[in-house]
Amino acid sequence: MFPEKLHKLFTETGADAVFVECDFLRRYLTGFYSTDGYVLLTAERCIFFADLRYFEAAEKALRGSAVEVVEGGYREALEAAKPYHTLGVPYPFVSVSALRLYEKDGHETVDCMPAFKRAMLIKTERELSLIQTACTIAEDAFNALLPEIREGMQEREVAALLEYRMRQLGASGTSFDTIVAFGENASVPHHETGERTLKFGDPILIDFGCKYEGYCSDITRTFLFGDDGKHEEFKKIHEIVLTAHELVKEKTAAGMTGKAADAIARDYLREKGLAEYFTHSLGHGIGLQIHEYPVLSPRGEEALEDGMVFSDEPGVYIAGKLGVRIEDSLCMKGGRAVSFMTRTSRKALIL
Amino acid sequence: MFPEKLHKLFTETGADAVFVECDFLRRYLTGFYSTDGYVLLTAERCIFFADLRYFEAAEKALRGSAVEVVEGGYREALEAAKPYHTLGVPYPFVSVSALRLYEKDGHETVDCMPAFKRAMLIKTERELSLIQTACTIAEDAFNALLPEIREGMQEREVAALLEYRMRQLGASGTSFDTIVAFGENASVPHHETGERTLKFGDPILIDFGCKYEGYCSDITRTFLFGDDGKHEEFKKIHEIVLTAHELVKEKTAAGMTGKAADAIARDYLREKGLAEYFTHSLGHGIGLQIHEYPVLSPRGEEALEDGMVFSDEPGVYIAGKLGVRIEDSLCMKGGRAVSFMTRTSRKALIL
Repeated sequence: MFPEKLHKLFTETGADAVFVECDFLRRYLTGFYSTDGYVLLTAERCIFFADLRYFEAAEKALRGSAVEVVEGGYREALEAAKPYHTLGVPYPFVSVSALRLYEKDGHETVDCMPAFKRAMLIKTERELSLIQTACTIAEDAFNALLPEIREGMQEREVAALLEYRMRQLGASGTSFDTIVAFGENASVPHHETGERTLKFGDPILIDFGCKYEGYCSDITRTFLFGDDGKHEEFKKIHEIVLTAHELVKEKTAAGMTGKAADAIARDYLREKGLAEYFTHSLGHGIGLQIHEYPVLSPRGEEALEDGMVFSDEPGVYIAGKLGVRIEDSLCMKGGRAVSFMTRTSRKALIL
Repeated sequence: MFPEKLHKLFTETGADAVFVECDFLRRYLTGFYSTDGYVLLTAERCIFFADLRYFEAAEKALRGSAVEVVEGGYREALEAAKPYHTLGVPYPFVSVSALRLYEKDGHETVDCMPAFKRAMLIKTERELSLIQTACTIAEDAFNALLPEIREGMQEREVAALLEYRMRQLGASGTSFDTIVAFGENASVPHHETGERTLKFGDPILIDFGCKYEGYCSDITRTFLFGDDGKHEEFKKIHEIVLTAHELVKEKTAAGMTGKAADAIARDYLREKGLAEYFTHSLGHGIGLQIHEYPVLSPRGEEALEDGMVFSDEPGVYIAGKLGVRIEDSLCMKGGRAVSFMTRTSRKALIL
């Protein structure tokens, strides 16, 4: 991270030092991806404690940056934190066991997560490029999956295959549990992927994403597995949801609140008599976590700005019957919303 | 869980009620697997708060058990906990944010994890059967993988393929990050799977496992990708490590400490002049977590008993050169150690 960004973040916490154990905030502070390590951020220094597995690679990657790499583990990191009375630690991501250790060393703690949230809201060019890669992998994996879908497959088989394709393309894993819903199962917005088998004519909803160097992608497509001529209502609703989705892309502009962006889709669905079936928010911020700021919902008071990344995912769910959701990950650029997704069709494809 | 086990666990915490948010302890208390939900355990009741996604399935699965299923989320669960002053919560798995909510409701907290650890040490028949399934899936996936390994593949490709095979066979995911190490990379006990490509004659070390209904398996195999005639030392060391591994299975008996079991392998390797290259513990407990009790190491004071599950994983690592580890998951049964692994070869296979 740039020294001035680090310094601003540090100052906002109001702490004497910030101590970070969890992986995504370590990635954010250092720009180096590892499954282990500790970061101590003070007014003057940002020190990354890396063990033998990572020390050499981290030292090489971060030479000349604002981050000093020191070989060491938890003990060394805690020792280095001792001189600082008030530690800023991210309360939602610190265990009570860790808190007790800090307290044993005489520290008071404050929650540094609000400062991180504000800092992480605006992505750097490098962050945008990692999110772009995560989105491209997801799209390419989806395109590889489509011809492999067969009648009789279970939802969980399709999910496993899609996840494997993402791993093959360079993803480290999924950004959340892949949702594959066949037929009526799509009417549950957060359906648990299960053993339902695929039949000719079934609608398929797939909501998925992967991680690349810690950064997430998020995408949903809804389409038909063959056309049995019985899904006219599905096709009609798909077209309406797609229009709502595209309207958000067209009309969202810098300075608009998350609430106003949400209203673009919600008002259109209301016009079509479907607002009551749109039972969740339009979107959420995306970055090192799959749910970040900004919030795009009737409660989103924050103004959208260049560098913010979020999902555009209107949906219509008719209980026990059908569900359609169409989602891209977008970023604000030059005052407009631009999609990271350019390689897959959003249409109600018929396989 | 049986009412008497629940009651014993509750009593040992010393709390007025136990409040559980994290998934593996919820699974342990209820016997029902879900990605969300809350459990309140008191002297008389064990209440599982399940939201709409899980309520029906949980209610059906747990009818007639000691667990009452109530439809509700975090708010309802916290509300139900209010009358109990001292809450037992698992400190290593509770965030400071959650702690602050409990405190806001006027609760004091104590760490209930020590009581859980003791209770979870001895597995029930049902738990053993779930671990057996997780082990069988891992072995079958390994056997499916072997003929698919090709020269030029990257470590991460082999890992992705193995994980896909486990998912296909019914695993919900991995029990830890799959380790695939080619050639000299195997000399790092916790090698990070990377982009090293496979060459003819390379030794391959694969340490992996999966989860089935929350329960873990853990297995390591080391073998050769073709025989280039240059790996006589590898073969010799492999034979010695295999003997150490098998000796542990033969000689481990109920009543023996984890330290004594560890010494079976360590003493044999010492006899062969290799003790200094065995740089980690012989094994760790396995259950809903990949690292549980008992500890099988020079510091393992606990006596082994029927129903305990642990790994037997001696290894020899010669820095920058070679590494061999052979691991099965075992359980204590009828006073002896019995392996869950019966379908894969532990030998230095030559592919």
